[in-house]
Amino acid sequence: MAGIDVGGTNIEAGLVGDDHRVLDRAKAPTPADGPDAVMDTIAELVGSLDGRPDAVGLGIPGVVHEGEVLTVPNLQNWHESIDIVDALKRRVGVPVALGNDANVGLLGEWLAGAARGARNVLGVWMGTGIGGGLILDGRPFYGSRGAAGKVGHIIVQRDGALCSCGRRGCVEADAGRRSKESAVPAMVDAGRATSLDRIREQDRKEKLTSKVWARALAEHDDLATELFDLAVKTRGAGIGSTVNLLDLELVVVGGGMAEKLGQDLADQVAAATVPWMLQPDPQLRCVAAELEDDSGLVGAASLGRAILVSG
Amino acid sequence: MAGIDVGGTNIEAGLVGDDHRVLDRAKAPTPADGPDAVMDTIAELVGSLDGRPDAVGLGIPGVVHEGEVLTVPNLQNWHESIDIVDALKRRVGVPVALGNDANVGLLGEWLAGAARGARNVLGVWMGTGIGGGLILDGRPFYGSRGAAGKVGHIIVQRDGALCSCGRRGCVEADAGRRSKESAVPAMVDAGRATSLDRIREQDRKEKLTSKVWARALAEHDDLATELFDLAVKTRGAGIGSTVNLLDLELVVVGGGMAEKLGQDLADQVAAATVPWMLQPDPQLRCVAAELEDDSGLVGAASLGRAILVSG
Repeated sequence: MAGIDVGGTNIEAGLVGDDHRVLDRAKAPTPADGPDAVMDTIAELVGSLDGRPDAVGLGIPGVVHEGEVLTVPNLQNWHESIDIVDALKRRVGVPVALGNDANVGLLGEWLAGAARGARNVLGVWMGTGIGGGLILDGRPFYGSRGAAGKVGHIIVQRDGALCSCGRRGCVEADAGRRSKESAVPAMVDAGRATSLDRIREQDRKEKLTSKVWARALAEHDDLATELFDLAVKTRGAGIGSTVNLLDLELVVVGGGMAEKLGQDLADQVAAATVPWMLQPDPQLRCVAAELEDDSGLVGAASLGRAILVSG
Repeated sequence: MAGIDVGGTNIEAGLVGDDHRVLDRAKAPTPADGPDAVMDTIAELVGSLDGRPDAVGLGIPGVVHEGEVLTVPNLQNWHESIDIVDALKRRVGVPVALGNDANVGLLGEWLAGAARGARNVLGVWMGTGIGGGLILDGRPFYGSRGAAGKVGHIIVQRDGALCSCGRRGCVEADAGRRSKESAVPAMVDAGRATSLDRIREQDRKEKLTSKVWARALAEHDDLATELFDLAVKTRGAGIGSTVNLLDLELVVVGGGMAEKLGQDLADQVAAATVPWMLQPDPQLRCVAAELEDDSGLVGAASLGRAILVSG
């Protein structure tokens, strides 16, 4: 089975065994010239794997709705709506299944990582935005049209900051990397000092990546710490709301920042969540994802497996 | 099968057939002197029904957690924690099952009312507080400890009004009847005119009941309209968050205000929800509960049925 994790920077492909172990992997930069080029790259990556998969599962950083990708905000030149499943199936010659990247990441952690065996789980994936996934009553939950898990668009401050989705006060409006990054220039213009740009240049990054943020936090950069703390607090309110609504037992924190900061980040998120919980419960655990990049590959491959079973 | 709906004012009991129809019913005022008196009243009501039930299901206005009632904020003199299931079983001599009243109300609507056949549903029950229930992937969802559905304690304004739960900015802090009622005296002291107290006295009510609110709204009372609109708007943000997280197809609005205002209220709630939805979707329906008081009886009876099946 092959799992594909399509990110804003790279596309990763993995050949995944029935035991959810990644047997072979390949990686390429994400083409900037639209969906056809992305599909070509995925097909090449699949072809390069050491073994021909029976099906391909795909995790996409966008809103997946009844099997179609509606919006893909973090991929360049992806304006037209194309039937990804069909386009990729024609290229790879095997069945293709599609999921949202954060849904798929949590699925990987539930099958083989930090959420193994748990019945009711929220996954919070922190990347450019804030993605999420749900395991409810011991199985993946996708909602009526496959779009469930948007923990980044829980509203925690009705009159709060404008979110990239156009609404106000979403978790992502304060807590996404995009929103943190966009706050920096204004704060610098207002006379605040920060090492973020120096670190970014030293690391030769175009953007303030998770690695840049992690280094700035390690250096106790005031501005980075302030924005990071606001992000964690905001996330806590959104996760608290979710726990109150769904009575969960586990929160898994994944994505770039979780890979860099690990359980420290999960502990901070837990501390920010507890004050909002109706029933503060020592049984609620908050843990960092274990599989790092592999969670997406393992979860995506299992989507492929599921489509073979269901026909 | 018998279903019991324990409210702050009355306890209702119903003998419910396998087709979810209420065959016989009985009603008594809720005793104000604690759980033992409440259990006695329930046992008397069950005994008065025209037929002996095989099991009794109970909907309680409180937090039900692993089969125990943790807090019952709207029942008087209910301080001690007692094992309700056991206490009632000894009195009625048949198996007893326990659920939260709003969970149970939605269950009734899903089995025999406005949510029949729906796969992913949020129930929002508006009474003294704001209760809720969930049907997910075509079955009732109770969470890891049976406490799911607390839509009233989704946080929509992190620095908002103080809620009866001690946190700030919960949906219930602006939208519950208790919070609306407590806002009235301050607004009157500040010089605002309202017909609410006159209507309450005419109706010989101690509190501003749903009926009193509905009459004040019908009279276009400014203050009542303002508080009601704020409540609907706040609910909209909480429901929007829930729809973004769970990708639901249906919202059922129940409780006292829904009985008085019907689909008008559901339409207002829908209008207040759409602006917060990530994927405004004409397929999301928002409807008023159909069964009125019977939803609690039917849902509670089905809990009793389920405990017989599961042993």
